[in-house]
Amino acid sequence: MENTDLQDYSHKRFNILTGEWVLVSPHRAKRPWQGQNEAVNNEKRSSYDETCYLCAGNTRINGEVNPKYDDVFVFTNDFAALQSDSPTFSINDALLIAESETGICKVICFSPDHSKSLADMNAKDIQKVVLAWQKEYKTLAENPNINYVQIFENKGAVMGCSNPHPHGQIWSQSTLPNEVDKKNTQQLNYYNKNKSSLLGDYLTQELEKQERIIYENDAFVVLIPFWAIWPFEVMIVPKRHMANILKMTNDETLKYGEAIAVLTKGYDKLFNTSFPYSSGIHQAPTDGNENNHWHWHMSFYPPLLRSASVKKFMVGYEMFGSPQRDITAETAVKMLRNLL
Amino acid sequence: MENTDLQDYSHKRFNILTGEWVLVSPHRAKRPWQGQNEAVNNEKRSSYDETCYLCAGNTRINGEVNPKYDDVFVFTNDFAALQSDSPTFSINDALLIAESETGICKVICFSPDHSKSLADMNAKDIQKVVLAWQKEYKTLAENPNINYVQIFENKGAVMGCSNPHPHGQIWSQSTLPNEVDKKNTQQLNYYNKNKSSLLGDYLTQELEKQERIIYENDAFVVLIPFWAIWPFEVMIVPKRHMANILKMTNDETLKYGEAIAVLTKGYDKLFNTSFPYSSGIHQAPTDGNENNHWHWHMSFYPPLLRSASVKKFMVGYEMFGSPQRDITAETAVKMLRNLL
Ligand SMILES: O=P(O)(O)O[C@H]1O[C@H](CO)[C@@H](O)[C@H](O)[C@H]1O
Ligand SMILES: O=P(O)(O)O[C@H]1O[C@H](CO)[C@@H](O)[C@H](O)[C@H]1O
Repeated sequence: MENTDLQDYSHKRFNILTGEWVLVSPHRAKRPWQGQNEAVNNEKRSSYDETCYLCAGNTRINGEVNPKYDDVFVFTNDFAALQSDSPTFSINDALLIAESETGICKVICFSPDHSKSLADMNAKDIQKVVLAWQKEYKTLAENPNINYVQIFENKGAVMGCSNPHPHGQIWSQSTLPNEVDKKNTQQLNYYNKNKSSLLGDYLTQELEKQERIIYENDAFVVLIPFWAIWPFEVMIVPKRHMANILKMTNDETLKYGEAIAVLTKGYDKLFNTSFPYSSGIHQAPTDGNENNHWHWHMSFYPPLLRSASVKKFMVGYEMFGSPQRDITAETAVKMLRNLL
Repeated sequence: MENTDLQDYSHKRFNILTGEWVLVSPHRAKRPWQGQNEAVNNEKRSSYDETCYLCAGNTRINGEVNPKYDDVFVFTNDFAALQSDSPTFSINDALLIAESETGICKVICFSPDHSKSLADMNAKDIQKVVLAWQKEYKTLAENPNINYVQIFENKGAVMGCSNPHPHGQIWSQSTLPNEVDKKNTQQLNYYNKNKSSLLGDYLTQELEKQERIIYENDAFVVLIPFWAIWPFEVMIVPKRHMANILKMTNDETLKYGEAIAVLTKGYDKLFNTSFPYSSGIHQAPTDGNENNHWHWHMSFYPPLLRSASVKKFMVGYEMFGSPQRDITAETAVKMLRNLL
């Protein structure tokens, strides 16, 4: 049974994976908006753009020429935030503390077709992207200097994406970034105490309740987590307990592609626009350990709130206090589920 | 002596106040930008706008009429994210955890003049805002249901501000938000161990080094913290150890106004635009304890990176990993210091 207090009164919800809280203000969803409207570009792009540095056969800024690739194409980021060959140093000067950090950053084109996004691709096409993620994760994991691999996508100009060609990124590095470190700790504590997977147990609970599930197939569940921050934040969780994406069978990679296809198509229908988001996969570190406490998952953080042009601003209170949302996870689930 | 590795190679810096890291990629500052440009509105506003719900004498959405105020005007937010009269409840259903949260949200107009921002006001005018912050903090602190008071400002449309009339907000609540909780823990641990103020000791170190100081007067230092996230993030720190803003003498409130005036005017000169930011004051909880481990401070988080229209996007890697910056704190200090 749904708890109606959660739909009526301000409250905070606990994120079991990070150990942090989100403030929820359901009564505030009807507040009028007089603020900034985002520019919306619903123009159809052409399949090939000669000025695009990601299209097949084109020359990138550093002079390299992209191959005439057929499906997925991966290369090392020309302006990588992490360098693989920088010196090792460490600063421990009283309250000034710093450590060198090395890494490898890659770009992955999802399709040679400039006009597409994941939402326009079918499960089989997306499976090819998944297989490429697996391959990159595997190679990077073998590198002794790489202990974590962050796979992500920024989609849409409003998400800082500087090129509409369908692509994502992979930043890998020697230590765990903040968000991963939090999830590592929470999952490890739970695993040590309960000898079971934190996210797996949560999934069981959600499948019983059926209040926040958007979609499921044999291998994956698409849901809005109880503690979601962004208005239409969604998580894709494998049903089987797996520490990282390498553990997927070939059939599961297709099921995963299917889950991504269903979700992204639903997103596009929500506000009748190519739905912007940042998505990312959180999974076990590549430090050589088993990391059995990890249950990998993919999250989507979309900024839109009410329409293609009105987004949620995570500013002020959110920066200095806690994340805050108006529309509840349960309301957002109903809106999305109706579109699949 | 400046450490040149920090200006040349990717590294991470430790935030002593939150216990988290920021990734710094100085070599990446020259990466070209083909992404979204923000709309810039440098039009001068008039001193009075009859459609503005914050101007003196105007009627707000709920029918209330603003008084003909002369300097500062405070009222309870018409669409508050926190309610003061909602029921108390708590959900502890295995991995679904939630708590009711009550609070009071206020809006504070900094001036009746619709055309102004803090950057257009002098130290004496800003002092009136500071005195109002003190008064609100005091009143809210006396309320037994309020254990923390978050004072903040969202400035500029790009920061989700829905009305250009100079104003800030005060959200107060029964528990500590995430960011405050982190700073509470870090300061308490340090205080217990060293019997001195974490931020006070950091300030001493920075005043010796003189590498990240932008401005100082008798009572305040304006600096870019070693671990700053946003390109031009700045912190205003009182020289005396004070847990909250009530501890300021009358003279110190003027000195504080002066520090804000100098900084915001410098900001406006940087990209020749009314500089957007979210600012906020972190200070001791209002839980009735001494909280002597707290050293209050004000931070400014501005989104702009290279010009009035190119901002830093905290997306993708930043959402899933750690915050990331290109231009170093030390470079940003030099740019800002030259403008004061
Ligand atoms: O309260 P406002 O100005 O309407 O709203 C703004 O500030 C709030 C507090 O930082 C945020 O939650 C909103 O997303 C933002 O648009
Ligand atoms: O790497 P890109 O696409 O040039 O840049 C984009 O993604 C990065 C990783 O999320 C962010 O650090 C940048 O702020 C954003 O503009």
